[in-house]
Amino acid sequence: MDRLEFANPDIFRDDRKGAPEVIFAATKTVEQCLAIAQKFLQLRGRAILSRVPPELEARLRAEFPAEPNPDDPQQVWLEWDAEARAAVLRRVGGEVKPSGGRVGIITAGTSDIPVAAEAALVCREMGCEVFKAHDVGVAGLHRLFEPLRALLREAQVDVIIVAAGMDGALPSVVAGLVDVPVIGLPTSVGYGFGGGGIGALTSMLQTCAPGLAVVNIDNGVGAGVMAGLIANRVAAARRQGGGR
Amino acid sequence: MDRLEFANPDIFRDDRKGAPEVIFAATKTVEQCLAIAQKFLQLRGRAILSRVPPELEARLRAEFPAEPNPDDPQQVWLEWDAEARAAVLRRVGGEVKPSGGRVGIITAGTSDIPVAAEAALVCREMGCEVFKAHDVGVAGLHRLFEPLRALLREAQVDVIIVAAGMDGALPSVVAGLVDVPVIGLPTSVGYGFGGGGIGALTSMLQTCAPGLAVVNIDNGVGAGVMAGLIANRVAAARRQGGGR
Amino acid sequence: MDRLEFANPDIFRDDRKGAPEVIFAATKTVEQCLAIAQKFLQLRGRAILSRVPPELEARLRAEFPAEPNPDDPQQVWLEWDAEARAAVLRRVGGEVKPSGGRVGIITAGTSDIPVAAEAALVCREMGCEVFKAHDVGVAGLHRLFEPLRALLREAQVDVIIVAAGMDGALPSVVAGLVDVPVIGLPTSVGYGFGGGGIGALTSMLQTCAPGLAVVNIDNGVGAGVMAGLIANRVAAARRQGGGR
Amino acid sequence: MDRLEFANPDIFRDDRKGAPEVIFAATKTVEQCLAIAQKFLQLRGRAILSRVPPELEARLRAEFPAEPNPDDPQQVWLEWDAEARAAVLRRVGGEVKPSGGRVGIITAGTSDIPVAAEAALVCREMGCEVFKAHDVGVAGLHRLFEPLRALLREAQVDVIIVAAGMDGALPSVVAGLVDVPVIGLPTSVGYGFGGGGIGALTSMLQTCAPGLAVVNIDNGVGAGVMAGLIANRVAAARRQGGGR
Amino acid sequence: MDRLEFANPDIFRDDRKGAPEVIFAATKTVEQCLAIAQKFLQLRGRAILSRVPPELEARLRAEFPAEPNPDDPQQVWLEWDAEARAAVLRRVGGEVKPSGGRVGIITAGTSDIPVAAEAALVCREMGCEVFKAHDVGVAGLHRLFEPLRALLREAQVDVIIVAAGMDGALPSVVAGLVDVPVIGLPTSVGYGFGGGGIGALTSMLQTCAPGLAVVNIDNGVGAGVMAGLIANRVAAARRQGGGR
Amino acid sequence: MDRLEFANPDIFRDDRKGAPEVIFAATKTVEQCLAIAQKFLQLRGRAILSRVPPELEARLRAEFPAEPNPDDPQQVWLEWDAEARAAVLRRVGGEVKPSGGRVGIITAGTSDIPVAAEAALVCREMGCEVFKAHDVGVAGLHRLFEPLRALLREAQVDVIIVAAGMDGALPSVVAGLVDVPVIGLPTSVGYGFGGGGIGALTSMLQTCAPGLAVVNIDNGVGAGVMAGLIANRVAAARRQGGGR
Amino acid sequence: MDRLEFANPDIFRDDRKGAPEVIFAATKTVEQCLAIAQKFLQLRGRAILSRVPPELEARLRAEFPAEPNPDDPQQVWLEWDAEARAAVLRRVGGEVKPSGGRVGIITAGTSDIPVAAEAALVCREMGCEVFKAHDVGVAGLHRLFEPLRALLREAQVDVIIVAAGMDGALPSVVAGLVDVPVIGLPTSVGYGFGGGGIGALTSMLQTCAPGLAVVNIDNGVGAGVMAGLIANRVAAARRQGGGR
Amino acid sequence: MDRLEFANPDIFRDDRKGAPEVIFAATKTVEQCLAIAQKFLQLRGRAILSRVPPELEARLRAEFPAEPNPDDPQQVWLEWDAEARAAVLRRVGGEVKPSGGRVGIITAGTSDIPVAAEAALVCREMGCEVFKAHDVGVAGLHRLFEPLRALLREAQVDVIIVAAGMDGALPSVVAGLVDVPVIGLPTSVGYGFGGGGIGALTSMLQTCAPGLAVVNIDNGVGAGVMAGLIANRVAAARRQGGGR
Repeated sequence: MDRLEFANPDIFRDDRKGAPEVIFAATKTVEQCLAIAQKFLQLRGRAILSRVPPELEARLRAEFPAEPNPDDPQQVWLEWDAEARAAVLRRVGGEVKPSGGRVGIITAGTSDIPVAAEAALVCREMGCEVFKAHDVGVAGLHRLFEPLRALLREAQVDVIIVAAGMDGALPSVVAGLVDVPVIGLPTSVGYGFGGGGIGALTSMLQTCAPGLAVVNIDNGVGAGVMAGLIANRVAAARRQGGGR
Repeated sequence: MDRLEFANPDIFRDDRKGAPEVIFAATKTVEQCLAIAQKFLQLRGRAILSRVPPELEARLRAEFPAEPNPDDPQQVWLEWDAEARAAVLRRVGGEVKPSGGRVGIITAGTSDIPVAAEAALVCREMGCEVFKAHDVGVAGLHRLFEPLRALLREAQVDVIIVAAGMDGALPSVVAGLVDVPVIGLPTSVGYGFGGGGIGALTSMLQTCAPGLAVVNIDNGVGAGVMAGLIANRVAAARRQGGGR
Repeated sequence: MDRLEFANPDIFRDDRKGAPEVIFAATKTVEQCLAIAQKFLQLRGRAILSRVPPELEARLRAEFPAEPNPDDPQQVWLEWDAEARAAVLRRVGGEVKPSGGRVGIITAGTSDIPVAAEAALVCREMGCEVFKAHDVGVAGLHRLFEPLRALLREAQVDVIIVAAGMDGALPSVVAGLVDVPVIGLPTSVGYGFGGGGIGALTSMLQTCAPGLAVVNIDNGVGAGVMAGLIANRVAAARRQGGGR
Repeated sequence: MDRLEFANPDIFRDDRKGAPEVIFAATKTVEQCLAIAQKFLQLRGRAILSRVPPELEARLRAEFPAEPNPDDPQQVWLEWDAEARAAVLRRVGGEVKPSGGRVGIITAGTSDIPVAAEAALVCREMGCEVFKAHDVGVAGLHRLFEPLRALLREAQVDVIIVAAGMDGALPSVVAGLVDVPVIGLPTSVGYGFGGGGIGALTSMLQTCAPGLAVVNIDNGVGAGVMAGLIANRVAAARRQGGGR
Repeated sequence: MDRLEFANPDIFRDDRKGAPEVIFAATKTVEQCLAIAQKFLQLRGRAILSRVPPELEARLRAEFPAEPNPDDPQQVWLEWDAEARAAVLRRVGGEVKPSGGRVGIITAGTSDIPVAAEAALVCREMGCEVFKAHDVGVAGLHRLFEPLRALLREAQVDVIIVAAGMDGALPSVVAGLVDVPVIGLPTSVGYGFGGGGIGALTSMLQTCAPGLAVVNIDNGVGAGVMAGLIANRVAAARRQGGGR
Repeated sequence: MDRLEFANPDIFRDDRKGAPEVIFAATKTVEQCLAIAQKFLQLRGRAILSRVPPELEARLRAEFPAEPNPDDPQQVWLEWDAEARAAVLRRVGGEVKPSGGRVGIITAGTSDIPVAAEAALVCREMGCEVFKAHDVGVAGLHRLFEPLRALLREAQVDVIIVAAGMDGALPSVVAGLVDVPVIGLPTSVGYGFGGGGIGALTSMLQTCAPGLAVVNIDNGVGAGVMAGLIANRVAAARRQGGGR
Repeated sequence: MDRLEFANPDIFRDDRKGAPEVIFAATKTVEQCLAIAQKFLQLRGRAILSRVPPELEARLRAEFPAEPNPDDPQQVWLEWDAEARAAVLRRVGGEVKPSGGRVGIITAGTSDIPVAAEAALVCREMGCEVFKAHDVGVAGLHRLFEPLRALLREAQVDVIIVAAGMDGALPSVVAGLVDVPVIGLPTSVGYGFGGGGIGALTSMLQTCAPGLAVVNIDNGVGAGVMAGLIANRVAAARRQGGGR
Repeated sequence: MDRLEFANPDIFRDDRKGAPEVIFAATKTVEQCLAIAQKFLQLRGRAILSRVPPELEARLRAEFPAEPNPDDPQQVWLEWDAEARAAVLRRVGGEVKPSGGRVGIITAGTSDIPVAAEAALVCREMGCEVFKAHDVGVAGLHRLFEPLRALLREAQVDVIIVAAGMDGALPSVVAGLVDVPVIGLPTSVGYGFGGGGIGALTSMLQTCAPGLAVVNIDNGVGAGVMAGLIANRVAAARRQGGGR
């Protein structure tokens, strides 16, 4: 029943992996996206779509209301994340349960926000609480210290995603300062040689700071899942306690 | 006092980062390596050197015994890791305290072992227990399942490092199967187009499996620190318990 | 007579090569495509066009019916393959004769289907029977085994094309499991570093599994011809028997 | 019993895949190579090593005689292939059974011979008969036609491997002329831009001729296994006959 | 007087170089193109524009008649080359004088014609006679020999331009067969790895055939000038005779 | 007289450019280097050689004393810079006159020192005073601030060269903090993807900080000349005063 | 007060760096650009926007007059730079004070003007006087000498920016001739291999002329800030005089 | 008779192409080189070997005298070109006949001489007279004009080869000044980004000067053959005269 002619969605990834499958809409037709989403809705009560093209966005907005319908508990609603251009379709039963995981997300510049938003959405759908600080890149380093302190001391995050394009220097600077694992999320911001995120990715891979691992350029979903897995594992340990 | 004319070692990184600085010996002179190591020994009781060239290895073996000298508690000794070509110089007071962190390390092929060994050494110096499985790459997939089960069920690791060269397919396969964070460690095994680890790195960055982040080619130290930070954070939460 | 001012179509390739020439429409004008197609129709009763742009598709649909006209045996008809965006123009006499060749085609994800469809069309036009399995990539490896068994045991294919983008890991996994030749068909699915199919191609070239050869990114026609030649040669041997 | 601490050789690949595992010696220590080879000798009566460094060659020559010892049927002997720098260790029981497969191997230049020799050795170890033609590249195209005719008409090969470096044009020319599948084997011959085989690989991937698939640069083993699988499958069909 | 605020056209290049300056229209505004063209018309009676965007084409067609106006000898007319998307604006006095140079131009495929047409136009504007053969690439080598014979024996060309995309193999094949200098003109035909002409360029640079030099991808103007210089120098020598 | 058969040294560059020519020894023979150096010594009293191979170093040490000979004012002496592997041959009359220029040089790590030393030597030979700070990279940012303050406030440098390999993040961080021009000098320190300085170069070109321009990887001479020209121009203005 | 939710503009960069922050509009939304610009206008009386897309241009033209309103000193006006596609929003108090810095800007071709215009605007906003010479590239070297003499002798510039695409040869030629620092500004003019500015950048990094440093492709702002910092520092020294 | 087991030398290329085959020694064994050379000596009286490794040089020097033996007209002698590391083996009957072709060769720097020498040798073996000018690169442009005038006015060359590494700017500058065809010969001189000749090649392909075509990096033989073909064709026309 969970099989389509053109797709074989990994419906139970959530159980196996502790992270939901996200439907990458950019390279699929509108009809394929909707059919796959229906499968997830039927079996899991939730479907997440990333990189939603305008045509699909229009279709989703036309078909689904923006809020649950109290009169029709079976009704699926659409939670549209404009920054990330991502959609969550949900019905009753598909709500997220808080995991206790705590994730920090930092961006080097305003242009990095869409990719960071994708990561944030995934973390929240994994039950994590997300804390953000935007536009604190190394061109004006004085902007970094206060937000970083807040993430570590106040929010007490267990992992930090740092999104940066261009020179990609911020994740190295952050990883040199903090004692939590850092996930470098290069974005395709930048032009010329090393543009499209290549410079940022290269810089993060060549980091001289320990405790930094990276995902591919603009892969907000990947960064989000990695951070969510780490944070949720720490949170679970915190709940269980009594560790060896 | 912690300053040298040619180097500015980050002696207290351990306190700040929860991970020790590792002296990358390949691009330094023998004299520079020894002087920096002395600084660490004085202040921390331990110095770790990676990518040790044969000339430096010979010098270390000549200057330091392989074991502590019970008659001279001040004596520094050399722990030589032949697989990783890495050295730990230690004196009394520089011993590692078990952290409770549990790290799994998998290699795709025999040739990936040296890089994996570097990661293992770093994890152990961060107090983690390390569990390994070698030569279980995708060319013969049947070899993978049993070791993977052992890591998850028996060793109960909190994070897995997967070292692979050539096609770099193994980390994606592993990340598709497990519910712990996976760190992809591409190795410079492979020749022709995509050789020297480029194919492996590319493949890991392009992974279609969630929960995988990567470090640079042959960066065993980086993978080890990342894994150690994750595992130790989980272990600390387990100890503290009573999480929110 | 088979000469045009701007083109020199290889009309008799079919006789020489056992594979028909396919008109690559993407870089030719509509008028050039139609004139070349007419040459093939006159002399071979069939013309195959790949990568058909919307403008040419419209023109073909306007000029040719979708089915043979029983009243006019000279009438050319259009067989439109929407998945592959490819067209076969055919008239009576241009039908395909079954060759007995048996080809399996596997895709890693839904987005790889268009390229796989191009390969399938070519195989069918070479007389082969084609068996498909979609969306069985390594992110959820459990989806692979049953379709693979079906291809080998039930369909008894002589060669398998595996289309994959992103990490391109599936062809290596398949080649590690089966005893028929595997043709890796990288697709331009994927973004960031190694995107546009470069990661998939690199991974396949770096394969650690034996029995895998590749064609260029998105080259469904090339994969189809290669598979068709192999399958048809096996089928011919099966018919002739009594081999040395 | 088939397990080593540092390696997990795929001893029964031959049964599963129809192609033997080849030990890639270049990135392993001498001791590792010998230990893995012993495993294969015990269980299969044969071990194949490619890219043998001089140090390992010397060790093999010292330990094993060049011919079977009629007085000691247990004695392993060494078959050294100087062109390919490859070794086969064999004992009674490890002989190759002719498969009836017929493989043609063409080189563009004298410098491509070592890589072609590696492919030839693998084909022969899979039971195929191998037919060669050397130094017939496109700089003097008149040299090509006679050897090609001989391969097709006299030797009646089922598949052709074409090894070429530099411009890599020969596989395309051959694939444009023959009706058997062609495997392009780029070699690392060439310097400057596109040197080290990159130009040859690129040219083969961009081929305008149908029926050509490629393996990585200098991957003689991969080309050999692919050709052997095709040829042996055709040969098996020829033996069985009575195909559908 | 030959100075513009934004441009410094090389009006007398023709005298110095024996080749006219060609205005590259693609990266200039319509107004800039027209102003520069006016300068050339005033001083040389002719202006050549390449890579003319549709907007500029429309403007040129609107402003200039397609033929000289017998009643107004001052009137500039437009010679539009649709294949090359290039324009020659000419007035009385700007006619080309035949140089006696003889240039052959060969294309590997139909899609290479636009670039070849650009080269042909430049050669003609340098006074050369141009002889063409289209779509004779290596996928069907039999198509090549007759046109090549005609160029050498009948047209007696002094230099041959060979335009090819994809595998770029044709220039090497031609250079291996003829005794005139060959200019390789890679075109941006081709997709996937080595696409956009990179494969063709690489292949030509790695040629194993002597007597081949190349220009950049799609640089029809450059190939035309180089061929024109060679052909015209030979023609001049032929006229002068009595050489040393 | 300033002409050699194989070289055409730019003896009077110093007058024209305000910067001396430096003989790049790595790609010249020992004899060529010595002959070119003699030309410079005759006409300018000084010859500078960079990237001196051991063989040339030995020859220079054998032929020239390390200090001026008070008894023989014509005697040339050798000033050997071991860090930079560079040599200055000098005779009376070839001394450097202080220019008043003030240059700061910062290195990210110990391994960047040789390249920085080359830049320092060039600056000093242009008459500048040089101020250095080593090993203050972003992995431990706290090490940076004090040395930076010293360069700006105490040494009052007019330009800063920042040498960095690996992630190349330091020049961006510095350029974000200071109000003097910064010259990024990427070094070939680093391995894996982006190794050999490519990552550092890319990062610097993609900088999000204003006021940073770069030279090529390991081009200490180029960075030194650029810094020297800037510093000396400022110093000259300071001397002249009374500016517009 | 200088904080926005999505941006953290570096309002006081001007004080710290001596160069204003420029809002890169290409990757931000219209609303983000306007909000950030308002922050700068409030606190500094001026906002500079580069790479302004047509949509934002229209919005700016609609909202702001092209000249100060004498009746309303609070009114912000728009200075639109059509060549650079850049905008300066200014109100009374935001005027530029002449710094005395003198900058020369040279372009190799007409197509390089937009990028050069961006650099010029930044220099002027830093108080410099800018002197230009256009279209003097190496294809006709005779065009270069007179403008260069004028820049050095008449305008007496302290630094020269040389913008060039394609072969990027002009900056090296200029740096070989002048005694002021040269900033190479590669532009994305050019196609084929090395197109999009890669060839120009590479050529400048590989320069054999001393005294040349570069910024990234099309980075007119970066070149302008670097030149402005140099020129202003020289001008300041000239004003202060009495240097050491 | 002209066939070897491992090679198929193109003995009569000279007749067909007007250019001799050159044995590329770098990737062949000493024995292969000698055997192929013998073939050429038997049939053509001359064998040319390029890129001769020291081991082969020693063998050649040991086997062949440096001059013809007047007592033994059958004796083969060795003409060793130390600059090019190339060898000509010749016997009576293998002498070169002057063709009347006139070739100019210019180098940008001393380090480019070996590659230029290879080109010169090939031109001379094709009967051309060769005229050289060394070390006249763009870092000091004043050095260029006099040698260029001499080549054009005095030597009256018909074609110029310009060898350059690093920025590769010289061929563009020369092609902008002369009215003969120019062949760009990039050399592998240069380091860092664009090193190994990539920068020089890219720059030449991106040339903004007309009349320049290129060969691959360090391909002195290719440049020599191309120049020789052009020069000899002009010379032949000069001899025949009476052209159309």
